[in-house]
Amino acid sequence: MNITADRIDTIATARLAIETDGEGFYEVTGEVQRFVRDAGANNGLVLMYMRHTSASLVIQENADHDVRTDLVTALTRLAPAAAGWTHDVEGPDDMPAHIKTMLTGVSLHIPVVEATLALGTWQGIYVVEHRARPHAREIILQFVGRA
Amino acid sequence: MNITADRIDTIATARLAIETDGEGFYEVTGEVQRFVRDAGANNGLVLMYMRHTSASLVIQENADHDVRTDLVTALTRLAPAAAGWTHDVEGPDDMPAHIKTMLTGVSLHIPVVEATLALGTWQGIYVVEHRARPHAREIILQFVGRA
Amino acid sequence: MNITADRIDTIATARLAIETDGEGFYEVTGEVQRFVRDAGANNGLVLMYMRHTSASLVIQENADHDVRTDLVTALTRLAPAAAGWTHDVEGPDDMPAHIKTMLTGVSLHIPVVEATLALGTWQGIYVVEHRARPHAREIILQFVGRA
Repeated sequence: MNITADRIDTIATARLAIETDGEGFYEVTGEVQRFVRDAGANNGLVLMYMRHTSASLVIQENADHDVRTDLVTALTRLAPAAAGWTHDVEGPDDMPAHIKTMLTGVSLHIPVVEATLALGTWQGIYVVEHRARPHAREIILQFVGRA
Repeated sequence: MNITADRIDTIATARLAIETDGEGFYEVTGEVQRFVRDAGANNGLVLMYMRHTSASLVIQENADHDVRTDLVTALTRLAPAAAGWTHDVEGPDDMPAHIKTMLTGVSLHIPVVEATLALGTWQGIYVVEHRARPHAREIILQFVGRA
Repeated sequence: MNITADRIDTIATARLAIETDGEGFYEVTGEVQRFVRDAGANNGLVLMYMRHTSASLVIQENADHDVRTDLVTALTRLAPAAAGWTHDVEGPDDMPAHIKTMLTGVSLHIPVVEATLALGTWQGIYVVEHRARPHAREIILQFVGRA
């Protein structure tokens, strides 16, 4: 195993605001790349954190749009709206949105190698909105490594 | 994007022991906040790691208790006990507990900004026990950043 | 809470290549332990990142092989092949593989305490292949902490 070691010197933090327009995948790969560039990141990693309980962060295929359509369908089958939830005061899409967020997660990282996000060829970074109506979502981006 | 950069100087580690009392969500937000304070954390992030295969870590709504009740129901529907599992020597709740742990995860992070956990307004941090009986669970807390 | 603080000085990065042989769990605990040793890691954490959208990273029980068999069964029940997916040009196992990857994740960390991976007694680290045919998979390993 070939290991590249570097000194670590920096923690950088920024807030990314995203306006969603109902249930679905919203790509933020470009925004995260811009953060890497503006933070002067060299070797390390970017951490992303979603400050909500009904939207999540997912790394998935960025080529065929049908994949994201099917991913939304899959989540709806796993957490249907009409399923006798106890918590229903915020509308029929609210409790399914919490379940979908729990299953997909609000915290992830992506390596940065030589000033570049080390995404795989077909990987894009997505904010996934699980509520039916538009929402303002906030993600915290952090870089840990050598700037 | 407004980026705040800080030097990084510290890795701090602690063990958090939680006694669970059967299936359900157990909030540990206060314990993690105490870790942030006692570690003298300024800017960086807290990483949490669950050292078990039938309990997990989830960030979810802390307002309405019904949400956590429904999340437990949702997981039981996704991984029911009577589903013909091959692995059944440790009781009917054991294999579903492994599945629920796989779906919700044992590793996450939360940003720390100016000595405060950057949780969203409605977010709490939970240990989720997936076994029917009480268990002693151990979580490793780490702070990476500037102390 | 007993907190151990250490200075942080190193970010180390390596690439781990895994040849899979169809759907299932492939243990890489030994490879990650070797990375910890070869990187000279003392206190900190290892981050793992899967550069694909149809294979994932999971920490699960390493004792009874039946557990992993049942985990594969559970994922197949949650994302069946014959379910009317829109995206089907890459074969009937492709869209289910994306869904299973979304549900189990491509990013995780494990603490390193006193030069040792702090896995729980029954925890192993697995690459999970969700495609039916063999694939070459690449994982990025990083150590952040004091070397």
